[in-house]
Amino acid sequence: MDKKAEIISIGNELLNGNTVNTNASYMARRLHENGMPVTWIQTVRDEAGAIQAALDIALKRSQVILVTGGLGPTHDDITKQVLADYFRSQLVFHEEIFEKIKKRFEKRGLQMPELNRGMALVPHNAEIIPNNLGTAPGLIFKRDSQLIFVMPGVPRELEAMIELTVIPRLRQECPECRVQTDIFRTTGITESAFYEKIAQELSFFPQYEIAFLPKVTGVDLRVVRQSEEVQNHEIFEKFKNVLYNAVGEFIYTTQELELEAILGNMLRGKKLTIAVAESLTGGLIQDKLTAVPGSSEYFLGGVVAYSNASKVKLLGVLQQSLDEHGAVSEQVAREMAAGVREKFTSHIGLSTTGIAGPTGTTIAKPVGLVYIGVAYQSTMLVRKYQFGVDRLMNKQRAAQAGLELVRRMIAGLPYE
Amino acid sequence: MDKKAEIISIGNELLNGNTVNTNASYMARRLHENGMPVTWIQTVRDEAGAIQAALDIALKRSQVILVTGGLGPTHDDITKQVLADYFRSQLVFHEEIFEKIKKRFEKRGLQMPELNRGMALVPHNAEIIPNNLGTAPGLIFKRDSQLIFVMPGVPRELEAMIELTVIPRLRQECPECRVQTDIFRTTGITESAFYEKIAQELSFFPQYEIAFLPKVTGVDLRVVRQSEEVQNHEIFEKFKNVLYNAVGEFIYTTQELELEAILGNMLRGKKLTIAVAESLTGGLIQDKLTAVPGSSEYFLGGVVAYSNASKVKLLGVLQQSLDEHGAVSEQVAREMAAGVREKFTSHIGLSTTGIAGPTGTTIAKPVGLVYIGVAYQSTMLVRKYQFGVDRLMNKQRAAQAGLELVRRMIAGLPYE
Repeated sequence: MDKKAEIISIGNELLNGNTVNTNASYMARRLHENGMPVTWIQTVRDEAGAIQAALDIALKRSQVILVTGGLGPTHDDITKQVLADYFRSQLVFHEEIFEKIKKRFEKRGLQMPELNRGMALVPHNAEIIPNNLGTAPGLIFKRDSQLIFVMPGVPRELEAMIELTVIPRLRQECPECRVQTDIFRTTGITESAFYEKIAQELSFFPQYEIAFLPKVTGVDLRVVRQSEEVQNHEIFEKFKNVLYNAVGEFIYTTQELELEAILGNMLRGKKLTIAVAESLTGGLIQDKLTAVPGSSEYFLGGVVAYSNASKVKLLGVLQQSLDEHGAVSEQVAREMAAGVREKFTSHIGLSTTGIAGPTGTTIAKPVGLVYIGVAYQSTMLVRKYQFGVDRLMNKQRAAQAGLELVRRMIAGLPYE
Repeated sequence: MDKKAEIISIGNELLNGNTVNTNASYMARRLHENGMPVTWIQTVRDEAGAIQAALDIALKRSQVILVTGGLGPTHDDITKQVLADYFRSQLVFHEEIFEKIKKRFEKRGLQMPELNRGMALVPHNAEIIPNNLGTAPGLIFKRDSQLIFVMPGVPRELEAMIELTVIPRLRQECPECRVQTDIFRTTGITESAFYEKIAQELSFFPQYEIAFLPKVTGVDLRVVRQSEEVQNHEIFEKFKNVLYNAVGEFIYTTQELELEAILGNMLRGKKLTIAVAESLTGGLIQDKLTAVPGSSEYFLGGVVAYSNASKVKLLGVLQQSLDEHGAVSEQVAREMAAGVREKFTSHIGLSTTGIAGPTGTTIAKPVGLVYIGVAYQSTMLVRKYQFGVDRLMNKQRAAQAGLELVRRMIAGLPYE
């Protein structure tokens, strides 16, 4: 099987800019990670002529075509009919699907609207992709060696079909396409510094496809190994040695998890509790910590001390420290961390103070200046950072730096 | 001019799923809002053959073509050369652009890498779109009545070119395309309830294109008026009357601003200060408030009281109230709001307590149960909400509901 894959996204909402086409990104990423890269994406309106034209183009150049959107019950959902006509198919009533849809409504105590009867009509020459999360079944058409998958545009329904049907099916059709994708998530190191640290050694692994994926919160390294490499564990161990020797301390996970989840697991494992005193990050660190289910086991709470008065009153920061050093200072960061640890009787106190911007700067204290403090056991650490000029990015970077500082301290990694 | 517009997005990162194509959404939305809807989007790799094929297709069916990506200085940036070849153009050195690029580097104290010299080469038969935010100039090719805009993929550079050059230019080419877009942002009402309240009256405005755009934080109503309607102020006033009579209290702005920014303006205008006590929202309300520049004028700070002990110690919640009613209760929400107002000496105290899920539920207190309290002047209000089962959505919805409750109270709107 030639590996060329193509996506056809159908929907006026995509062409009016109301909806960002995250479905296409998701499919492209997952197919790429599974050795079947996508070569083209077409986005077209809910119009028969537009869908036919896109199919004409795609069938001339691609072996695998993923069509999404327009399978719902309303009048602009014409994808199924258009595809059926295109592949000279009759729509036939599918009892089993009909019963399944009826049961979905019954379970929620609702009567099925008559409109949904049409969802049980399927092209006689298409294979069915079951939909356990919604009403519209997916379809597979075949034309010689070409495969055309037709799926709903609802992200979770689409994603389930990609994972449970499309990828396994493509693996089966193309065993040699199998690849292995690994991810190494880092924070606290820039893309260019990361690259410089391993550039020379990377040349010893030409068989690996390596991508640096930078985000505000850090750089992910993605490594794709082609099928012939997947079994070569020795080389991969060598690669990991090189990587960990160069930047191991920056790698916080090899799973698809955020830093706050990793830190949460560490805190839970070590039976440690944490409390947070935030100034410039304004609640973001605590919002991240509490995004993790079960975080109440180790996160006790904290204070957003935006005003100076609240730093004194709620955290016990000395008025003298504020007067002498200002709110954005090493001394105040230290007192905030110690104060919040004491107030919440937690093992760890984490604090941030800084200038998010665009206002609040002086010559000595530019936008992006941040102090982060950690009180843990007998250690009372403050680190100084200089971030950029964008308010929201400064909040994000400071929040991530704070979480990372705690991770390093409890992991016994260098943190100065 | 026929109004058909098409986007060609160029870049392997889009087809590997590393980058979501937000540029295409942005362009599609802005062109739609300006009366020049996009009919097709093609996404292709950084390969000459792929780009040529996309142009062949687009030039057969579209009058306006927006090409983005691949204009940078590195070896995979081939867009300019491919377009120049396609339109039988010579690349010529453009002194003025060269000087501008050199100055950009000098301003940052850097020497211009030689690689950037190539950025000053431009096709002899293309118009230049100036780039004040980056190094790569944009280009306009003309073929008979067709216009082909070529722009960088860096979002802020692209957006500036769309706003400053593309939209004004298209307006000039097609004065009759001019439309007016208005937005009415609501929160606290579901899409279906919103629709039901105005469905009948909407039928009196068939000339308006009306879209309901639901998000976790509320529903935006977007109204597009075609050129012949733009001057008809009387009808639009009638429309607004209908809208405000039906759902006026839910509309918090007609600008592209978030609720926290609108509330911030109200607080500043009324010289009121606010402090926040969060339990299930875990810092999210305060993170939102502090995302607004200048929020330190009215936001004093707050407490994330995740543990029961911290509710007592930092907010003065009575142990008896926790024992008798539990942390997720009207009584505790009330004491949290009063407590945080007192601790921070603010005019307004806002509190949240609830069950974000997936853990922490009982039969009497299901996931999604939330109490929100507001202490303002002599009023001490608590409202009960029942949201859904998703942890992050529950945090978002509770945070938005809390901000909205405060907005309604200080605006003198009904809030029970």
